[in-house]
Amino acid sequence: MDERVSRWAAAVRSTSVAEGIHAVDLDGGWSVGGGINGGFQMAVVGQALASAVPGKPHPVTFAAHFLSAATGGPALVRTTVRREGGRFATLSADLVQDDVVRLTVTATYSDLALLPDTVATTAAPFAMAPLEECVSTSFAPPELKKVAPLMERFDMRFDPSSIGWAVGEPSGAGELRAWFRVEEGQAPDPVQLLLAVDALPPVTFDLGLPGWAPTVQLTAHVRAVPADGWLRLRQVTRNVAGGLFEEDCEVWDSADRLVAQSRQLAVLPR
Amino acid sequence: MDERVSRWAAAVRSTSVAEGIHAVDLDGGWSVGGGINGGFQMAVVGQALASAVPGKPHPVTFAAHFLSAATGGPALVRTTVRREGGRFATLSADLVQDDVVRLTVTATYSDLALLPDTVATTAAPFAMAPLEECVSTSFAPPELKKVAPLMERFDMRFDPSSIGWAVGEPSGAGELRAWFRVEEGQAPDPVQLLLAVDALPPVTFDLGLPGWAPTVQLTAHVRAVPADGWLRLRQVTRNVAGGLFEEDCEVWDSADRLVAQSRQLAVLPR
Repeated sequence: MDERVSRWAAAVRSTSVAEGIHAVDLDGGWSVGGGINGGFQMAVVGQALASAVPGKPHPVTFAAHFLSAATGGPALVRTTVRREGGRFATLSADLVQDDVVRLTVTATYSDLALLPDTVATTAAPFAMAPLEECVSTSFAPPELKKVAPLMERFDMRFDPSSIGWAVGEPSGAGELRAWFRVEEGQAPDPVQLLLAVDALPPVTFDLGLPGWAPTVQLTAHVRAVPADGWLRLRQVTRNVAGGLFEEDCEVWDSADRLVAQSRQLAVLPR
Repeated sequence: MDERVSRWAAAVRSTSVAEGIHAVDLDGGWSVGGGINGGFQMAVVGQALASAVPGKPHPVTFAAHFLSAATGGPALVRTTVRREGGRFATLSADLVQDDVVRLTVTATYSDLALLPDTVATTAAPFAMAPLEECVSTSFAPPELKKVAPLMERFDMRFDPSSIGWAVGEPSGAGELRAWFRVEEGQAPDPVQLLLAVDALPPVTFDLGLPGWAPTVQLTAHVRAVPADGWLRLRQVTRNVAGGLFEEDCEVWDSADRLVAQSRQLAVLPR
């Protein structure tokens, strides 16, 4: 295994310390705005749940409520099997630090590779500029990297039409699109898609609201084991109201398959 | 209170029998295909949660996993306050019959009337034929009403362009649109929107698959207290694959506000 592969595996690794209790060590490098990124927390919990039911390693639905801000350091994932039998299992889990729940999850797990292989998706992949014309987060100014160190934990390349916010010229459309991979040589997997659906900055950046937008709730559907290669992410909002906004994310793989969909409700930055 | 108002109130009413335990009696008239409609179950649980935290009577997010088919008759709603403080509370609940969990929910509650009143929704209401040109479910043949008695529990009027499935001519677009109210004289409220997002037939009817499509998971966002009058519902699917499909529902109120959005993952009928 190459060193970069093991970096992601190490980041989401947990150790079983008792029946239904996994110890994890949250890498503070996944922080943004003072807390650990929600998508990364979901991936950590998602990986712990992957071993909860034999033969059902993949999240299919994953519904997370965020209760408090997680910080770098030790945490526990407490898992419960709610229902088992048939193709799907229903699981729940809490991510806990110092007896405070950060994240509570209910999820459906299965083996995506055993589901029927018929695909009748009518959604079409969104337009993306070629990778070489896109703008890497590695060009972000040091001030931004300091506030969002997680940007150095993955490789993200923005479509030029959705990076205007970085130079004070948001499009106003409420849409962000980027190529994404955790790191070179690290093939995407179903658990990694839980990170992917929350890896882009808040879509409100594109509305001229560059502040922190804490997630209240996020539900993801993982629909297939992603093909090797870059992922394409798009986030859109259509309902900004009452101090909240919904954010829909689509993840397409290199084989042009819609492998994940998510929707979150987040607090509108002031 | 008029008799019709009390019918809906009675249907979702629960009695507190102990701390965090509510007794309910599920009306078998809300059945479809042999089980109680999921949206109705959500409304029953949602109503029980409305009194869990003083001053936070409204669901804002509501994430439900369906574990087994509910039947008409007595049930318990077991509720837990997971987090309280600030504008939002996080709650969880199980709907239980004979010690078997039907539905497990995590939800965010608040007072929607106290949220900021700014609306910057970019989504536009979908096109609907005028009410008088739409097709009421009361015209459904007796065989259909027998399989889906819930159709007599509310007033639903289909846009003529999305009722072809009823005469063996589905549009193939994967979209259903209808006017909806629980009953004449019964103003919609936030809890009722949990029913509304799952009241239409499965969107797969419009794809020529008229069978039962059990919901695996549904997450709803309730974004405002709906104005009095008819609601407009639209369900769409864009990702039919792997024996599953996602179904997005939008609910617009009579004041042209997008008051609820939901997405569910359901099992594709054979």
